[in-house]
Amino acid sequence: MGAELVESIEHLRQRLTEARRANATIGLVPTMGALHAGHVRLIEEARHECQAVVVSIFVNPLQFDREDDLRRYPRRLDQDRQLCDRFGVDLVFAPAVTEMYPVPPECTIDVGHLADHLCGKYRPGHFHSVATVVMKLFGIVQPDRAYFGEKDAQQLAIIRRFVADLNVPVRIVGVPTVREPDGLALSSRNAQLGPAERQSAIALFRALKAADRRIASGDTDAEQVKRLAAAEIPPDDPSLRLEYLEIVDPETMQPVTAITGPVRVAGALWVGSTRLIDNVLSLGAT
Amino acid sequence: MGAELVESIEHLRQRLTEARRANATIGLVPTMGALHAGHVRLIEEARHECQAVVVSIFVNPLQFDREDDLRRYPRRLDQDRQLCDRFGVDLVFAPAVTEMYPVPPECTIDVGHLADHLCGKYRPGHFHSVATVVMKLFGIVQPDRAYFGEKDAQQLAIIRRFVADLNVPVRIVGVPTVREPDGLALSSRNAQLGPAERQSAIALFRALKAADRRIASGDTDAEQVKRLAAAEIPPDDPSLRLEYLEIVDPETMQPVTAITGPVRVAGALWVGSTRLIDNVLSLGAT
Repeated sequence: MGAELVESIEHLRQRLTEARRANATIGLVPTMGALHAGHVRLIEEARHECQAVVVSIFVNPLQFDREDDLRRYPRRLDQDRQLCDRFGVDLVFAPAVTEMYPVPPECTIDVGHLADHLCGKYRPGHFHSVATVVMKLFGIVQPDRAYFGEKDAQQLAIIRRFVADLNVPVRIVGVPTVREPDGLALSSRNAQLGPAERQSAIALFRALKAADRRIASGDTDAEQVKRLAAAEIPPDDPSLRLEYLEIVDPETMQPVTAITGPVRVAGALWVGSTRLIDNVLSLGAT
Repeated sequence: MGAELVESIEHLRQRLTEARRANATIGLVPTMGALHAGHVRLIEEARHECQAVVVSIFVNPLQFDREDDLRRYPRRLDQDRQLCDRFGVDLVFAPAVTEMYPVPPECTIDVGHLADHLCGKYRPGHFHSVATVVMKLFGIVQPDRAYFGEKDAQQLAIIRRFVADLNVPVRIVGVPTVREPDGLALSSRNAQLGPAERQSAIALFRALKAADRRIASGDTDAEQVKRLAAAEIPPDDPSLRLEYLEIVDPETMQPVTAITGPVRVAGALWVGSTRLIDNVLSLGAT
């Protein structure tokens, strides 16, 4: 038994038609592979709520804005399959690029102003392509539920919004970020860090926590909170470069100036040649 | 019995879940109401192929580029229901604007270059909004098949393309244009024509037929064919203004210069204050 590897859309649809006939609830965990404990949390959540669990593994070339990032992105299908096996996944959908894009897509998902800030500002077209490939996966799998990590908060907000705007019949489940003991958010990109970089990388989470504490203590001035938080990034560490640290509305992903309710504090930090992102939900003064 | 009127998305989904449990194939005929014999052809086709037939009636405000066109667009739900009843429709889905758009949509369907020419050129944003509302209807109804008239050829090409690009699990069925005895394509907008305008309106189909004959006789020069066809519009009729007459690839909707295979000849003609469109598929020299 174990997780069955499926590479063609047609074959996957056949398998899922059988599952649907047996009245199975279908859960989808879309991934780019290089699975880690954060993905395992998504799989466990899906396993808990659904009778049939599909993990898709597809490194979507269209969503990479830098050629070297696409080239360096970790790929290890054999290990991923074993992990899927261990955690009770039913189907691993790992299509080739030509299976997903037999021709370049002409029609895509426009994500509007949700991509104006945060990562969307620094990775032009990225979320447009993320939303498009996720919509394709929804069309292929037709899941009842789909699971996404809160680490990619802007992605999650965009997916929730296009599902609402387009009446897509999928329930989106956001799953809390899994962290290393020191707080570093799990990411497939962490594998690219050298030992010293790994130590430095924690600065991002520290900055976000500093912002969160500041907000909890009653500071409502977003500019001031961001300035104080950014000061947590050691200026004398040459491997670090803060790309952004922003405070946004958790749904619209628009920056706020006055913090009057829950906000998401999000940042992107370059550690050497690796770009890491993280965020925390800050509920305001306590 | 008869066609049941449903106004809420939730209610419609309940009804369709029952149909799906009974293994019914679901057919959707999306319309803006003011149903005529062209719609009846769509309904008959759906009735023939599906166990459950849904006709949606929704005048989508977002796809109207002119306020007066939206205001003047014919609405007659009672008559439409009776017609649906007569032709064996199971469910008439007629949502309010606020049901379809509780908030303005942020995420939409980008239709790329398919809207660059023909109607897309003269109605900016129109097909973007058409594709978006059709995608919403697909998400709400989850039909196995959906039926569209070939009269709206650019719309049909765009829907076929976004369904392919986004792996939407719906089979798109194109249905040939229904015409009056003199050749005028049926359209809800024909109801806006006065008697003299009705007579003048046939000029568009005559021009398209002239182009088709010319192509069948071996003319491959698109510019020349268009010029000759446009000459069929009586220049001395002050109620007529040709908006465009174009020869395009039937899939990409891009204009061709040399006619080397099947093409679609499409035009838009203003008749007084009413804008009519029509097209023919021309298979090339015979």
